[in-house]
Amino acid sequence: MRWFHLVVKVYYDLPRVEEKLIIKSLESHGLETVPVNVTKEPLPLQGIEEHVPIVRAVSMFRSTYTSAVLEANGMKPINSAYTIMFSGDKVLTYSALASHGIPIPKTVIALNGDSTEKAYASVGFPLVDKPPIGSWGRLVSLVRDWHEAKIVIEHRSMMNSPQMKVHIVQEYVKMPENRDIRCFVIGGNCLGCIYRVPSEGEWRSNVALGGKVRALKDSTEPCELAVKAAEALKGEVVSIDIFEGKEGYLVNEVNGVPEFKGFMKATGINVGDEIAKYVYERVKR
Amino acid sequence: MRWFHLVVKVYYDLPRVEEKLIIKSLESHGLETVPVNVTKEPLPLQGIEEHVPIVRAVSMFRSTYTSAVLEANGMKPINSAYTIMFSGDKVLTYSALASHGIPIPKTVIALNGDSTEKAYASVGFPLVDKPPIGSWGRLVSLVRDWHEAKIVIEHRSMMNSPQMKVHIVQEYVKMPENRDIRCFVIGGNCLGCIYRVPSEGEWRSNVALGGKVRALKDSTEPCELAVKAAEALKGEVVSIDIFEGKEGYLVNEVNGVPEFKGFMKATGINVGDEIAKYVYERVKR
Amino acid sequence: MRWFHLVVKVYYDLPRVEEKLIIKSLESHGLETVPVNVTKEPLPLQGIEEHVPIVRAVSMFRSTYTSAVLEANGMKPINSAYTIMFSGDKVLTYSALASHGIPIPKTVIALNGDSTEKAYASVGFPLVDKPPIGSWGRLVSLVRDWHEAKIVIEHRSMMNSPQMKVHIVQEYVKMPENRDIRCFVIGGNCLGCIYRVPSEGEWRSNVALGGKVRALKDSTEPCELAVKAAEALKGEVVSIDIFEGKEGYLVNEVNGVPEFKGFMKATGINVGDEIAKYVYERVKR
Amino acid sequence: MRWFHLVVKVYYDLPRVEEKLIIKSLESHGLETVPVNVTKEPLPLQGIEEHVPIVRAVSMFRSTYTSAVLEANGMKPINSAYTIMFSGDKVLTYSALASHGIPIPKTVIALNGDSTEKAYASVGFPLVDKPPIGSWGRLVSLVRDWHEAKIVIEHRSMMNSPQMKVHIVQEYVKMPENRDIRCFVIGGNCLGCIYRVPSEGEWRSNVALGGKVRALKDSTEPCELAVKAAEALKGEVVSIDIFEGKEGYLVNEVNGVPEFKGFMKATGINVGDEIAKYVYERVKR
Repeated sequence: MRWFHLVVKVYYDLPRVEEKLIIKSLESHGLETVPVNVTKEPLPLQGIEEHVPIVRAVSMFRSTYTSAVLEANGMKPINSAYTIMFSGDKVLTYSALASHGIPIPKTVIALNGDSTEKAYASVGFPLVDKPPIGSWGRLVSLVRDWHEAKIVIEHRSMMNSPQMKVHIVQEYVKMPENRDIRCFVIGGNCLGCIYRVPSEGEWRSNVALGGKVRALKDSTEPCELAVKAAEALKGEVVSIDIFEGKEGYLVNEVNGVPEFKGFMKATGINVGDEIAKYVYERVKR
Repeated sequence: MRWFHLVVKVYYDLPRVEEKLIIKSLESHGLETVPVNVTKEPLPLQGIEEHVPIVRAVSMFRSTYTSAVLEANGMKPINSAYTIMFSGDKVLTYSALASHGIPIPKTVIALNGDSTEKAYASVGFPLVDKPPIGSWGRLVSLVRDWHEAKIVIEHRSMMNSPQMKVHIVQEYVKMPENRDIRCFVIGGNCLGCIYRVPSEGEWRSNVALGGKVRALKDSTEPCELAVKAAEALKGEVVSIDIFEGKEGYLVNEVNGVPEFKGFMKATGINVGDEIAKYVYERVKR
Repeated sequence: MRWFHLVVKVYYDLPRVEEKLIIKSLESHGLETVPVNVTKEPLPLQGIEEHVPIVRAVSMFRSTYTSAVLEANGMKPINSAYTIMFSGDKVLTYSALASHGIPIPKTVIALNGDSTEKAYASVGFPLVDKPPIGSWGRLVSLVRDWHEAKIVIEHRSMMNSPQMKVHIVQEYVKMPENRDIRCFVIGGNCLGCIYRVPSEGEWRSNVALGGKVRALKDSTEPCELAVKAAEALKGEVVSIDIFEGKEGYLVNEVNGVPEFKGFMKATGINVGDEIAKYVYERVKR
Repeated sequence: MRWFHLVVKVYYDLPRVEEKLIIKSLESHGLETVPVNVTKEPLPLQGIEEHVPIVRAVSMFRSTYTSAVLEANGMKPINSAYTIMFSGDKVLTYSALASHGIPIPKTVIALNGDSTEKAYASVGFPLVDKPPIGSWGRLVSLVRDWHEAKIVIEHRSMMNSPQMKVHIVQEYVKMPENRDIRCFVIGGNCLGCIYRVPSEGEWRSNVALGGKVRALKDSTEPCELAVKAAEALKGEVVSIDIFEGKEGYLVNEVNGVPEFKGFMKATGINVGDEIAKYVYERVKR
């Protein structure tokens, strides 16, 4: 019985409540679980002993590189370097989604300030501008007119990261209560979806910005889309952000190292446990 | 005859001799060719008319995002966003190579300064340290002792990009004349290989650092490896850097937007023309 | 006649029309003039032969350091390192002005994002937010409400320079045509003042942003203030930006390496010539 | 008795043992003492009530700006914005020292990579290279040959801060045990001096890098120089780093927000108490 010999390792940098829940659930499923702080130990491209890796570093690059190292060693981490990298960079996410025929918001990419002005003109105000990289809604800007356009373009041009100079310019999809939908998918199965509603004085629904959560009564339709999005990004454990557009649902984001505190609160589903079950099945395979 | 209707677009930011050669060769093959400056025009994720895209921006992120946009529009750019991104980031390159069983140098990844000291201790001096991102040998450091180790680690820790804080730590593979080998692969066919020999007072062989080039008499063996490496990265037009290790060839780098001035000089092969031929065949398909 | 032996050196990095005019005027006054590119030659703290230095690098830090080196060598560059540094950093400028009893706009300094929200609340909208360092109006933001406040604070928090995280928060001083006043002072004498009027669709009057210039009919009052401001900053050749507040003139900025193309156009005064005359007199002393 | 009405405020960001000692000593001298976290409250350029400010933020820019704000309000903080800024930037420090006739190490400033190579050639190996800004010995590099020269120049060129691209290139002053001397000056009086000796495997003597401390038996001569250096920088409470050159003492650094844990340990002098006494006398004046 080979799977008894396989250890599960949970790779982290700053342990959040999610990582602690996952570890607890894995242990309660009888799986030997070792937490690994990726900032403490070097990661060799050769010679790591086989195990089941769950990659959960908060830093997108740390997670990507950890998965890459584990793949070099012949393992299949949850999630893969491809999934974390392509869902961590919103241009690459949209590209993967659109090339799989999944509906996304009307979006224009501008690679520097000059072309951003043209992108703004083509999309029209109000619009949303965001950089490819970033979490928790950071730098996601609702731009209402040319005055704000100049502020955003000037500030972004002064950032040093090449990715921060890139603008994702989108039609502002206005939804009831400014809410959006987040669904959670594990191994191709959708656990359900929640609404995220922005707090007073904020238009973004991110929980980190005070957003409130509420379970959907019927998740069937967004779940269907979420499963397709997870597949497009080859994600085993991912959450998917969905907009309610005029002509149907649109996928806005895929999270390759998903937080799920808010999802658990709204749905009562023990996500850590669901992940542990999935890992247990995979270990048995 | 469908292919007469397909335009070839060459996407660039700073046009090098390579881009000019490619455009000239495409035109001499009777292909309608349009150069597109990716810094001037926004790139919509929807609605771009079908064409044959060749992506050649010097900036790795600009090239990656351009290919991503084109893929969102249903096209297959040369090279794909995956190829440019995964060959542009050396951790991801090594990961893709090793997971396909292709030999690479003994390498350890350290995600911050503390673990870098441990990585150095495990690899031993002299060693090579480089960041995941960067071209033309930049920041590739031959570290001979702990004094130099501290200089590299301290300086890198002060850089702001998350990727620059990551250290790729490798055994120093000493080769005759400090040379390395570069092969060029188009559509699975290897055009040949050259030696690159560092200039006086420099240990790195990059042509940008004054490296001299010389064709290999017999490229058979490195070419075989190069073709496998191109395949592992799904690269249609790529160059591959190869080391001569004690126990055989090792792939060290794959270039997803390859320069080829030096290769042309050493081999006499008109690479622009070879690319044009390949594109012509692809258009006909 | 000692002054015949003294060479004038003009230190520059990117030569603008101003530097060329200054050199031409110095030569037409019979002064031996040597342009020095500060990016090409190292600057020793000891052993530079005595000369008359005019420091005109576009980069504020390059100008400051060049003047500092020349002072270490016992010379008195135009302008001093103190003048360039303290007029180049707007917090230090306001501090020098206010401590000399010169009226400035109502201003609050916030050293990070949290205190910036409080600063905004205390100043009220509309307000102006700018970082301490920067030229040509860059990142000077007219913030009209909390939506824009969040955009500015979030973007600035993502910049890496410690100075860019600092917010200078000011009452928006509304002036006729949105104009401001710029005066030019050499050796304690005011050459005159001009209005700068923003171009259509822009609220900032900077010439670099398309501002139009027009000479004042009577510069007496702003000139008086400009001379005091120059003195407070110990500036020999400086321009001074002035607001027309409800209760009188306010000094908003002092430029330690002043551009003067617009000033010349509006007033017909040959500023290069005035600088040359001043240097000639100083050389004779 | 006016001084009973004056509060002492200690401005800090991250409270170190030094700030705690200063506050305790001030209170034990009967002075009403208020700690102010400069990251929490905005600092208005107008309208702060008179008090006695001691500025102790770890961040050089925060300390400089805090003092600047207090000076705008008519106060004389310990230390002044000028002292903190000019001692915080090593090019400005050397300039102030040399222009006051105080001996400093043989030093060449290079404003970018190209001129740095020339500066290295003129100084010769081994040499010391450091950026203008930085504490605790960070990025201070002992460069032994051209191999290390390239590593330092390349890494520095990739940093985004304009100051980090500037190189201070110095003769390596070899001292017994690699030690240097640090003296502490309050209000023109020298409290004494200590040796700082690097830890095993480190050439820099900074206490933050493990340096050991030991009091000088006779501090007379370095103390004399330290008092002059404090005066040149207009510092009221400063520490001064001194080298023992072949031809006499050389001032290497002045600290405008000095740490003094190591100094207290080596000398037994209660520096917090000495600062409190000085403030008490100043309040009485």
